[in-house]
Amino acid sequence: MAVRAEQARQRGADLLVTPELFIPGYAPTLVHGTDGEAHRQQLAALAAGMGIGLVASTVEHEDGDHYISASLFSADGTELTRYRKQNLFGRDENSVFTPGTMPPVVVPFNGVRVALGICFDVEFPEFVRSAALAGAELLCVPTAVPLREPDASGRQPLDTRLIPAMVVPTRALESQIFIAYANHAGPSFAGLSTIADPYGRHLSAAADDGELIVADIDLESLVQARADTGYLARFANHTASVYTP
Amino acid sequence: MAVRAEQARQRGADLLVTPELFIPGYAPTLVHGTDGEAHRQQLAALAAGMGIGLVASTVEHEDGDHYISASLFSADGTELTRYRKQNLFGRDENSVFTPGTMPPVVVPFNGVRVALGICFDVEFPEFVRSAALAGAELLCVPTAVPLREPDASGRQPLDTRLIPAMVVPTRALESQIFIAYANHAGPSFAGLSTIADPYGRHLSAAADDGELIVADIDLESLVQARADTGYLARFANHTASVYTP
Repeated sequence: MAVRAEQARQRGADLLVTPELFIPGYAPTLVHGTDGEAHRQQLAALAAGMGIGLVASTVEHEDGDHYISASLFSADGTELTRYRKQNLFGRDENSVFTPGTMPPVVVPFNGVRVALGICFDVEFPEFVRSAALAGAELLCVPTAVPLREPDASGRQPLDTRLIPAMVVPTRALESQIFIAYANHAGPSFAGLSTIADPYGRHLSAAADDGELIVADIDLESLVQARADTGYLARFANHTASVYTP
Repeated sequence: MAVRAEQARQRGADLLVTPELFIPGYAPTLVHGTDGEAHRQQLAALAAGMGIGLVASTVEHEDGDHYISASLFSADGTELTRYRKQNLFGRDENSVFTPGTMPPVVVPFNGVRVALGICFDVEFPEFVRSAALAGAELLCVPTAVPLREPDASGRQPLDTRLIPAMVVPTRALESQIFIAYANHAGPSFAGLSTIADPYGRHLSAAADDGELIVADIDLESLVQARADTGYLARFANHTASVYTP
Protein backbone atom coordinates (compact mmCIF):
# COMPACT_ATOMS: atom_id res chain seq x y z
CA MET A 1 0.00 0.00 0.00
CA ALA A 2 2.94 2.33 0.63
CA VAL A 3 3.97 2.00 -3.02
CA ARG A 4 0.44 2.82 -4.16
CA ALA A 5 0.23 5.79 -1.79
CA GLU A 6 3.49 7.14 -3.20
CA GLN A 7 2.32 6.64 -6.79
CA ALA A 8 -0.98 8.34 -6.00
CA ARG A 9 0.81 11.27 -4.37
CA GLN A 10 3.09 11.62 -7.37
CA ARG A 11 0.08 11.74 -9.65
CA GLY A 12 -1.34 14.59 -7.58
CA ALA A 13 -4.03 12.69 -5.68
CA ASP A 14 -5.19 14.01 -2.30
CA LEU A 15 -6.96 10.81 -1.35
CA LEU A 16 -6.26 7.14 -2.04
CA VAL A 17 -9.15 4.65 -1.79
CA THR A 18 -8.11 1.02 -1.36
CA PRO A 19 -10.03 -2.29 -1.69
CA GLU A 20 -12.00 -4.02 1.07
CA LEU A 21 -9.76 -5.57 3.76
CA PHE A 22 -6.71 -4.74 1.65
CA ILE A 23 -4.22 -4.91 4.54
CA PRO A 24 -5.46 -8.12 6.25
CA GLY A 25 -6.48 -9.64 2.89
CA TYR A 26 -10.00 -10.32 1.65
CA ALA A 27 -10.54 -13.75 3.22
CA PRO A 28 -13.38 -13.20 5.69
CA THR A 29 -13.15 -16.46 7.62
CA LEU A 30 -9.38 -16.14 7.98
CA VAL A 31 -8.98 -12.47 8.88
CA HIS A 32 -11.92 -11.67 11.15
CA GLY A 33 -9.67 -12.07 14.19
CA THR A 34 -6.82 -9.88 12.94
CA ASP A 35 -5.71 -6.85 14.89
CA GLY A 36 -7.63 -4.04 13.21
CA GLU A 37 -6.35 -1.47 15.66
CA ALA A 38 -2.75 -2.26 14.74
CA HIS A 39 -3.65 -1.99 11.06
CA ARG A 40 -5.29 1.37 11.60
CA GLN A 41 -2.22 2.68 13.41
CA GLN A 42 -0.13 1.49 10.49
CA LEU A 43 -2.49 3.22 8.03
CA ALA A 44 -2.48 6.46 10.03
CA ALA A 45 1.32 6.45 10.01
CA LEU A 46 1.35 5.76 6.28
CA ALA A 47 -1.07 8.62 5.55
CA ALA A 48 0.94 11.04 7.67
CA GLY A 49 4.27 9.84 6.29
CA MET A 50 3.14 10.20 2.67
CA GLY A 51 1.03 13.29 3.28
CA ILE A 52 -2.01 11.77 1.55
CA GLY A 53 -5.56 10.98 2.64
CA LEU A 54 -6.41 7.28 2.83
CA VAL A 55 -9.58 5.21 2.79
CA ALA A 56 -8.83 1.71 3.99
CA SER A 57 -10.80 -1.22 5.32
CA THR A 58 -9.89 -3.16 8.47
CA VAL A 59 -11.70 -5.30 11.03
CA GLU A 60 -13.18 -4.14 14.31
CA HIS A 61 -14.01 -6.07 17.45
CA GLU A 62 -16.56 -5.13 20.08
CA ASP A 63 -18.24 -7.26 22.75
CA GLY A 64 -17.14 -10.42 20.97
CA ASP A 65 -18.54 -9.32 17.61
CA HIS A 66 -16.43 -8.67 14.54
CA TYR A 67 -17.14 -5.99 11.95
CA ILE A 68 -15.80 -5.12 8.52
CA SER A 69 -14.96 -1.45 8.77
CA ALA A 70 -13.60 1.31 6.61
CA SER A 71 -11.76 4.38 7.84
CA LEU A 72 -10.96 7.74 6.31
CA PHE A 73 -7.57 9.11 7.39
CA SER A 74 -6.55 12.69 6.72
CA ALA A 75 -3.12 13.48 5.32
CA ASP A 76 -1.87 14.13 8.86
CA GLY A 77 -2.92 10.65 9.98
CA THR A 78 -6.10 11.61 11.82
CA GLU A 79 -8.89 9.03 11.54
CA LEU A 80 -11.76 11.30 10.46
CA THR A 81 -14.49 8.67 10.44
CA ARG A 82 -14.97 4.94 10.62
CA TYR A 83 -17.92 3.02 9.20
CA ARG A 84 -19.09 -0.58 9.76
CA LYS A 85 -20.38 -2.47 6.73
CA GLN A 86 -24.16 -2.81 6.96
CA ASN A 87 -24.78 -5.22 4.11
CA LEU A 88 -22.62 -8.30 4.55
CA PHE A 89 -22.33 -10.47 1.47
CA GLY A 90 -22.61 -14.22 1.28
CA ARG A 91 -22.07 -17.13 3.63
CA ASP A 92 -18.47 -16.46 4.59
CA GLU A 93 -18.93 -12.86 5.67
CA ASN A 94 -22.17 -13.63 7.46
CA SER A 95 -20.63 -16.57 9.30
CA VAL A 96 -17.97 -14.51 11.06
CA PHE A 97 -18.96 -10.84 10.90
CA THR A 98 -21.83 -8.85 12.37
CA PRO A 99 -23.51 -6.20 10.20
CA GLY A 100 -23.11 -2.58 11.23
CA THR A 101 -26.27 -0.76 12.23
CA MET A 102 -25.28 2.85 11.70
CA PRO A 103 -25.38 4.70 8.37
CA PRO A 104 -22.13 6.34 7.30
CA VAL A 105 -21.30 9.72 8.79
CA VAL A 106 -20.55 12.55 6.33
CA VAL A 107 -17.26 14.31 7.02
CA PRO A 108 -15.46 17.13 5.24
CA PHE A 109 -12.21 16.28 3.51
CA ASN A 110 -10.36 18.92 1.47
CA GLY A 111 -13.60 20.79 0.86
CA VAL A 112 -15.60 17.73 -0.20
CA ARG A 113 -18.22 16.04 1.97
CA VAL A 114 -17.23 12.39 2.09
CA ALA A 115 -19.05 9.25 3.26
CA LEU A 116 -17.90 5.65 3.26
CA GLY A 117 -19.60 2.46 2.12
CA ILE A 118 -18.25 -1.03 1.69
CA CYS A 119 -18.78 -3.37 -1.28
CA PHE A 120 -22.30 -4.91 -1.18
CA ASP A 121 -23.65 -1.73 0.49
CA VAL A 122 -23.39 0.22 -2.74
CA GLU A 123 -25.31 -2.38 -4.73
CA PHE A 124 -28.40 -1.18 -2.85
CA PRO A 125 -29.61 2.12 -4.30
CA GLU A 126 -31.21 2.98 -0.97
CA PHE A 127 -27.80 3.01 0.71
CA VAL A 128 -26.34 5.52 -1.73
CA ARG A 129 -29.52 7.61 -1.72
CA SER A 130 -29.35 7.80 2.04
CA ALA A 131 -25.72 8.95 1.96
CA ALA A 132 -26.49 11.60 -0.66
CA LEU A 133 -29.50 12.85 1.31
CA ALA A 134 -27.25 13.05 4.38
CA GLY A 135 -25.08 15.46 2.41
CA ALA A 136 -22.36 13.28 0.92
CA GLU A 137 -20.80 14.51 -2.33
CA LEU A 138 -18.25 11.71 -2.63
CA LEU A 139 -18.84 8.13 -1.55
CA CYS A 140 -15.63 6.10 -1.13
CA VAL A 141 -16.17 2.37 -1.42
CA PRO A 142 -13.55 -0.26 -0.64
CA THR A 143 -14.87 -3.39 -2.30
CA ALA A 144 -14.10 -7.03 -3.01
CA VAL A 145 -16.26 -8.23 -5.88
CA PRO A 146 -15.16 -11.66 -7.10
CA LEU A 147 -15.55 -13.09 -10.54
CA ARG A 148 -18.08 -15.91 -10.55
CA GLU A 149 -17.99 -19.20 -12.41
CA PRO A 150 -20.98 -21.18 -13.71
CA ASP A 151 -22.44 -23.47 -11.02
CA ALA A 152 -22.47 -27.27 -11.10
CA SER A 153 -25.46 -27.28 -13.46
CA GLY A 154 -23.59 -24.96 -15.83
CA ARG A 155 -25.92 -22.09 -15.09
CA GLN A 156 -24.35 -18.70 -15.66
CA PRO A 157 -24.46 -16.63 -12.45
CA LEU A 158 -24.64 -12.86 -12.21
CA ASP A 159 -21.85 -11.34 -14.27
CA THR A 160 -20.23 -9.41 -11.42
CA ARG A 161 -18.31 -7.17 -13.81
CA LEU A 162 -21.64 -5.39 -14.24
CA ILE A 163 -21.32 -4.07 -10.68
CA PRO A 164 -18.38 -1.73 -11.33
CA ALA A 165 -19.17 -1.24 -15.01
CA MET A 166 -22.92 -0.53 -14.85
CA VAL A 167 -24.35 -0.49 -11.32
CA VAL A 168 -21.83 1.90 -9.75
CA PRO A 169 -22.19 4.64 -12.39
CA THR A 170 -25.97 4.23 -12.19
CA ARG A 171 -25.76 4.82 -8.43
CA ALA A 172 -23.75 7.98 -9.10
CA LEU A 173 -26.26 9.17 -11.69
CA GLU A 174 -29.43 8.45 -9.73
CA SER A 175 -28.17 9.90 -6.42
CA GLN A 176 -26.10 12.63 -8.09
CA ILE A 177 -22.91 11.92 -6.22
CA PHE A 178 -19.30 10.98 -6.99
CA ILE A 179 -18.33 7.40 -6.21
CA ALA A 180 -14.75 6.18 -5.88
CA TYR A 181 -15.01 2.41 -6.02
CA ALA A 182 -11.83 0.40 -5.39
CA ASN A 183 -11.99 -3.32 -6.13
CA HIS A 184 -9.41 -6.06 -5.79
CA ALA A 185 -7.83 -7.16 -9.05
CA GLY A 186 -6.24 -10.40 -10.12
CA PRO A 187 -7.66 -13.68 -11.43
CA SER A 188 -10.36 -14.12 -8.74
CA PHE A 189 -11.78 -10.60 -8.72
CA ALA A 190 -13.77 -8.48 -11.12
CA GLY A 191 -11.35 -5.54 -10.94
CA LEU A 192 -12.70 -2.60 -12.99
CA SER A 193 -12.29 -0.06 -10.19
CA THR A 194 -13.94 3.17 -11.18
CA ILE A 195 -14.47 6.80 -10.28
CA ALA A 196 -18.01 7.68 -11.41
CA ASP A 197 -19.52 11.15 -11.57
CA PRO A 198 -23.05 12.53 -10.98
CA TYR A 199 -23.78 12.25 -14.71
CA GLY A 200 -23.20 8.49 -14.60
CA ARG A 201 -19.89 8.69 -16.44
CA HIS A 202 -16.75 6.75 -15.65
CA LEU A 203 -14.26 9.58 -15.06
CA SER A 204 -11.55 6.98 -14.89
CA ALA A 205 -11.87 3.21 -14.91
CA ALA A 206 -9.33 0.46 -14.43
CA ALA A 207 -8.89 -2.59 -16.56
CA ASP A 208 -9.16 -5.88 -14.68
CA ASP A 209 -5.63 -5.60 -13.36
CA GLY A 210 -4.45 -3.61 -10.36
CA GLU A 211 -4.17 -0.29 -12.12
CA LEU A 212 -4.15 2.94 -10.10
CA ILE A 213 -6.78 5.35 -11.42
CA VAL A 214 -7.00 9.08 -10.70
CA ALA A 215 -9.73 11.68 -11.28
CA ASP A 216 -10.63 15.17 -10.16
CA ILE A 217 -13.76 15.66 -8.05
CA ASP A 218 -15.35 18.75 -9.59
CA LEU A 219 -18.10 19.86 -7.24
CA GLU A 220 -19.37 22.36 -9.81
CA SER A 221 -20.35 19.39 -11.94
CA LEU A 222 -22.28 17.91 -9.02
CA VAL A 223 -24.15 21.17 -8.42
CA GLN A 224 -24.95 21.36 -12.12
CA ALA A 225 -26.21 17.77 -12.28
CA ARG A 226 -28.47 18.32 -9.29
CA ALA A 227 -29.86 21.52 -10.77
CA ASP A 228 -30.35 19.81 -14.10
CA THR A 229 -32.36 16.74 -13.11
CA GLY A 230 -34.35 16.39 -9.92
CA TYR A 231 -33.33 12.89 -8.92
CA LEU A 232 -32.33 14.02 -5.46
CA ALA A 233 -34.67 16.99 -5.14
CA ARG A 234 -37.55 14.51 -5.47
CA PHE A 235 -36.63 13.36 -1.97
CA ALA A 236 -36.24 16.84 -0.49
CA ASN A 237 -38.95 16.16 2.05
CA HIS A 238 -37.38 12.89 3.08
CA THR A 239 -35.04 14.40 5.64
CA ALA A 240 -34.83 11.11 7.46
CA SER A 241 -33.02 8.23 5.86
CA VAL A 242 -35.08 6.35 3.31
CA TYR A 243 -33.04 3.25 4.08
CA THR A 244 -33.60 1.15 7.17
CA PRO A 245 -31.67 -2.11 7.01
CA MET B 1 -49.72 0.81 -33.93
CA ALA B 2 -51.83 -1.72 -35.81
CA VAL B 3 -48.86 -2.52 -38.05
CA ARG B 4 -46.63 -2.99 -35.03
CA ALA B 5 -49.20 -5.16 -33.30
CA GLU B 6 -49.41 -7.37 -36.38
CA GLN B 7 -45.61 -7.59 -36.64
CA ALA B 8 -45.36 -8.45 -32.96
CA ARG B 9 -48.02 -11.14 -33.30
CA GLN B 10 -46.24 -12.62 -36.31
CA ARG B 11 -43.03 -12.79 -34.30
CA GLY B 12 -44.85 -14.73 -31.59
CA ALA B 13 -45.22 -11.99 -29.00
CA ASP B 14 -48.06 -12.21 -26.47
CA LEU B 15 -47.69 -8.61 -25.36
CA LEU B 16 -46.72 -5.40 -27.15
CA VAL B 17 -45.42 -2.47 -25.08
CA THR B 18 -45.58 0.93 -26.80
CA PRO B 19 -43.97 4.31 -25.99
CA GLU B 20 -45.43 7.00 -23.72
CA LEU B 21 -48.46 8.76 -25.23
CA PHE B 22 -47.86 6.91 -28.50
CA ILE B 23 -51.40 7.39 -29.81
CA PRO B 24 -51.93 11.07 -28.94
CA GLY B 25 -48.23 11.86 -29.53
CA TYR B 26 -45.64 12.81 -26.92
CA ALA B 27 -46.28 16.56 -26.78
CA PRO B 28 -47.51 17.15 -23.22
CA THR B 29 -48.80 20.69 -23.62
CA LEU B 30 -50.64 19.84 -26.83
CA VAL B 31 -52.23 16.51 -25.97
CA HIS B 32 -53.31 16.82 -22.33
CA GLY B 33 -56.85 17.59 -23.46
CA THR B 34 -57.18 14.70 -25.90
CA ASP B 35 -59.90 12.11 -25.49
CA GLY B 36 -58.11 9.33 -23.60
CA GLU B 37 -61.28 7.30 -23.29
CA ALA B 38 -61.69 7.19 -27.07
CA HIS B 39 -58.05 6.16 -27.43
CA ARG B 40 -58.48 3.38 -24.90
CA GLN B 41 -61.53 2.06 -26.75
CA GLN B 42 -59.47 2.10 -29.93
CA LEU B 43 -56.63 0.23 -28.18
CA ALA B 44 -59.00 -2.36 -26.70
CA ALA B 45 -60.44 -3.01 -30.15
CA LEU B 46 -56.95 -3.30 -31.60
CA ALA B 47 -55.83 -5.79 -28.93
CA ALA B 48 -58.96 -7.91 -29.44
CA GLY B 49 -58.77 -7.67 -33.21
CA MET B 50 -55.12 -8.75 -33.31
CA GLY B 51 -55.39 -11.16 -30.40
CA ILE B 52 -52.40 -9.64 -28.62
CA GLY B 53 -51.89 -7.99 -25.23
CA LEU B 54 -51.10 -4.27 -25.34
CA VAL B 55 -49.50 -1.78 -23.00
CA ALA B 56 -50.27 1.73 -24.17
CA SER B 57 -50.23 5.20 -22.67
CA THR B 58 -53.09 7.68 -22.92
CA VAL B 59 -54.36 10.68 -20.97
CA GLU B 60 -56.96 10.66 -18.22
CA HIS B 61 -59.18 13.42 -16.90
CA GLU B 62 -60.76 13.63 -13.46
CA ASP B 63 -62.15 16.62 -11.58
CA GLY B 64 -60.43 19.00 -13.97
CA ASP B 65 -57.03 17.34 -13.56
CA HIS B 66 -55.15 15.59 -16.34
CA TYR B 67 -53.00 12.50 -15.89
CA ILE B 68 -50.55 10.58 -18.05
CA SER B 69 -51.73 7.00 -17.81
CA ALA B 70 -50.75 3.60 -19.06
CA SER B 71 -53.11 0.66 -19.54
CA LEU B 72 -52.61 -3.06 -19.93
CA PHE B 73 -55.11 -4.67 -22.30
CA SER B 74 -55.51 -8.41 -22.54
CA ALA B 75 -55.70 -10.14 -25.92
CA ASP B 76 -59.50 -10.06 -25.71
CA GLY B 77 -59.50 -6.29 -25.26
CA THR B 78 -60.13 -6.19 -21.50
CA GLU B 79 -58.35 -3.34 -19.72
CA LEU B 80 -56.68 -5.28 -16.90
CA THR B 81 -55.16 -2.30 -15.11
CA ARG B 82 -54.49 1.38 -15.54
CA TYR B 83 -51.74 3.35 -13.85
CA ARG B 84 -51.18 7.13 -13.49
CA LYS B 85 -47.61 8.39 -13.81
CA GLN B 86 -46.32 9.41 -10.39
CA ASN B 87 -43.09 11.11 -11.40
CA LEU B 88 -43.79 13.77 -13.98
CA PHE B 89 -40.73 15.01 -15.84
CA GLY B 90 -39.81 18.59 -16.60
CA ARG B 91 -41.64 21.85 -17.02
CA ASP B 92 -44.02 20.82 -19.81
CA GLU B 93 -45.43 17.74 -18.11
CA ASN B 94 -45.68 19.51 -14.77
CA SER B 95 -47.43 22.50 -16.29
CA VAL B 96 -50.43 20.54 -17.59
CA PHE B 97 -50.51 17.17 -15.82
CA THR B 98 -51.10 16.13 -12.22
CA PRO B 99 -48.94 13.35 -10.75
CA GLY B 100 -50.65 10.10 -9.85
CA THR B 101 -50.66 9.16 -6.20
CA MET B 102 -51.19 5.40 -6.36
CA PRO B 103 -48.43 2.83 -6.92
CA PRO B 104 -48.98 0.46 -9.82
CA VAL B 105 -51.21 -2.55 -9.22
CA VAL B 106 -49.77 -5.99 -10.01
CA VAL B 107 -51.96 -8.05 -12.32
CA PRO B 108 -51.52 -11.52 -13.83
CA PHE B 109 -51.04 -11.68 -17.57
CA ASN B 110 -50.35 -15.02 -19.28
CA GLY B 111 -48.89 -16.42 -16.08
CA VAL B 112 -46.64 -13.42 -15.40
CA ARG B 113 -47.31 -10.80 -12.72
CA VAL B 114 -47.17 -7.46 -14.48
CA ALA B 115 -46.99 -3.88 -13.24
CA LEU B 116 -46.83 -0.64 -15.20
CA GLY B 117 -44.58 2.40 -14.83
CA ILE B 118 -44.10 5.39 -17.09
CA CYS B 119 -40.82 6.95 -18.19
CA PHE B 120 -39.28 9.05 -15.36
CA ASP B 121 -40.82 6.67 -12.77
CA VAL B 122 -38.32 3.95 -13.59
CA GLU B 123 -35.34 6.26 -13.18
CA PHE B 124 -36.07 6.10 -9.44
CA PRO B 125 -34.86 2.81 -7.97
CA GLU B 126 -37.42 3.11 -5.19
CA PHE B 127 -40.25 2.91 -7.72
CA VAL B 128 -39.03 -0.34 -9.23
CA ARG B 129 -38.16 -1.77 -5.82
CA SER B 130 -41.68 -1.03 -4.66
CA ALA B 131 -43.20 -2.77 -7.69
CA ALA B 132 -40.97 -5.83 -7.20
CA LEU B 133 -41.82 -6.01 -3.49
CA ALA B 134 -45.49 -5.81 -4.45
CA GLY B 135 -44.98 -8.98 -6.47
CA ALA B 136 -44.29 -7.75 -10.00
CA GLU B 137 -42.16 -10.00 -12.20
CA LEU B 138 -42.38 -7.83 -15.31
CA LEU B 139 -42.52 -4.06 -15.32
CA CYS B 140 -43.78 -2.57 -18.60
CA VAL B 141 -42.67 1.01 -19.16
CA PRO B 142 -43.93 3.26 -21.93
CA THR B 143 -41.37 6.05 -22.08
CA ALA B 144 -40.39 9.21 -23.94
CA VAL B 145 -36.75 10.00 -23.22
CA PRO B 146 -35.50 12.75 -25.51
CA LEU B 147 -31.96 13.31 -26.66
CA ARG B 148 -30.50 16.43 -25.10
CA GLU B 149 -28.30 19.08 -26.63
CA PRO B 150 -25.61 21.13 -24.86
CA ASP B 151 -27.09 24.24 -23.22
CA ALA B 152 -26.34 27.86 -24.17
CA SER B 153 -23.05 27.75 -22.27
CA GLY B 154 -22.02 24.65 -24.20
CA ARG B 155 -22.29 22.50 -21.10
CA GLN B 156 -22.97 18.86 -21.86
CA PRO B 157 -26.19 17.73 -20.15
CA LEU B 158 -27.00 14.23 -18.95
CA ASP B 159 -26.48 11.78 -21.79
CA THR B 160 -30.00 10.40 -21.80
CA ARG B 161 -28.95 7.34 -23.79
CA LEU B 162 -27.59 6.09 -20.46
CA ILE B 163 -31.18 5.69 -19.22
CA PRO B 164 -32.12 2.79 -21.53
CA ALA B 165 -28.55 1.53 -21.92
CA MET B 166 -27.40 1.54 -18.28
CA VAL B 167 -30.05 2.63 -15.79
CA VAL B 168 -32.84 0.33 -16.94
CA PRO B 169 -30.78 -2.91 -16.82
CA THR B 170 -29.43 -1.80 -13.42
CA ARG B 171 -33.03 -1.45 -12.20
CA ALA B 172 -33.75 -4.97 -13.44
CA LEU B 173 -30.64 -6.34 -11.73
CA GLU B 174 -31.08 -4.61 -8.37
CA SER B 175 -34.81 -5.37 -8.05
CA GLN B 176 -34.56 -8.75 -9.80
CA ILE B 177 -37.37 -8.15 -12.24
CA PHE B 178 -37.89 -8.06 -16.00
CA ILE B 179 -38.36 -4.62 -17.53
CA ALA B 180 -39.82 -3.98 -20.98
CA TYR B 181 -38.93 -0.38 -21.74
CA ALA B 182 -40.39 1.13 -24.92
CA ASN B 183 -39.01 4.51 -25.97
CA HIS B 184 -39.84 6.76 -28.88
CA ALA B 185 -37.30 6.73 -31.67
CA GLY B 186 -36.36 9.27 -34.30
CA PRO B 187 -34.10 12.32 -34.26
CA SER B 188 -35.41 13.87 -31.02
CA PHE B 189 -35.50 10.79 -28.86
CA ALA B 190 -32.91 8.48 -27.31
CA GLY B 191 -34.50 5.32 -28.74
CA LEU B 192 -32.64 2.23 -27.46
CA SER B 193 -35.78 0.45 -26.25
CA THR B 194 -34.79 -2.61 -24.26
CA ILE B 195 -36.04 -5.74 -22.55
CA ALA B 196 -33.81 -6.26 -19.51
CA ASP B 197 -33.66 -9.35 -17.32
CA PRO B 198 -33.10 -9.91 -13.57
CA TYR B 199 -29.38 -10.45 -14.22
CA GLY B 200 -29.05 -6.95 -15.67
CA ARG B 201 -28.69 -8.16 -19.23
CA HIS B 202 -30.29 -6.66 -22.30
CA LEU B 203 -32.26 -9.63 -23.64
CA SER B 204 -33.01 -7.57 -26.70
CA ALA B 205 -32.20 -3.93 -27.38
CA ALA B 206 -33.15 -1.64 -30.21
CA ALA B 207 -30.86 0.66 -32.10
CA ASP B 208 -31.89 4.31 -32.03
CA ASP B 209 -34.48 3.77 -34.72
CA GLY B 210 -38.00 2.43 -34.29
CA GLU B 211 -37.09 -1.22 -34.33
CA LEU B 212 -39.49 -3.78 -32.83
CA ILE B 213 -37.70 -5.98 -30.29
CA VAL B 214 -38.90 -9.30 -28.90
CA ALA B 215 -37.78 -11.45 -25.96
CA ASP B 216 -39.06 -14.35 -23.89
CA ILE B 217 -39.87 -13.74 -20.23
CA ASP B 218 -38.39 -16.82 -18.52
CA LEU B 219 -39.65 -16.81 -14.95
CA GLU B 220 -37.26 -19.60 -14.02
CA SER B 221 -34.44 -17.14 -14.62
CA LEU B 222 -36.08 -14.67 -12.24
CA VAL B 223 -36.47 -17.30 -9.53
CA GLN B 224 -32.84 -18.29 -9.99
CA ALA B 225 -31.60 -14.69 -9.81
CA ARG B 226 -33.55 -14.06 -6.62
CA ALA B 227 -32.22 -17.26 -5.04
CA ASP B 228 -28.70 -16.39 -6.15
CA THR B 229 -28.32 -12.86 -4.77
CA GLY B 230 -30.38 -11.38 -1.98
CA TYR B 231 -31.09 -7.97 -3.45
CA LEU B 232 -34.80 -8.35 -2.92
CA ALA B 233 -34.71 -10.70 0.07
CA ARG B 234 -32.87 -7.93 1.94
CA PHE B 235 -36.21 -6.12 1.99
CA ALA B 236 -38.28 -9.11 2.99
CA ASN B 237 -39.44 -7.36 6.15
CA HIS B 238 -40.43 -4.26 4.27
CA THR B 239 -43.90 -5.45 3.43
CA ALA B 240 -45.07 -1.88 2.98
CA SER B 241 -43.86 0.14 0.07
CA VAL B 242 -40.42 1.64 0.59
CA TYR B 243 -41.39 4.44 -1.78
CA THR B 244 -43.59 7.31 -0.74
CA PRO B 245 -43.62 10.04 -3.37
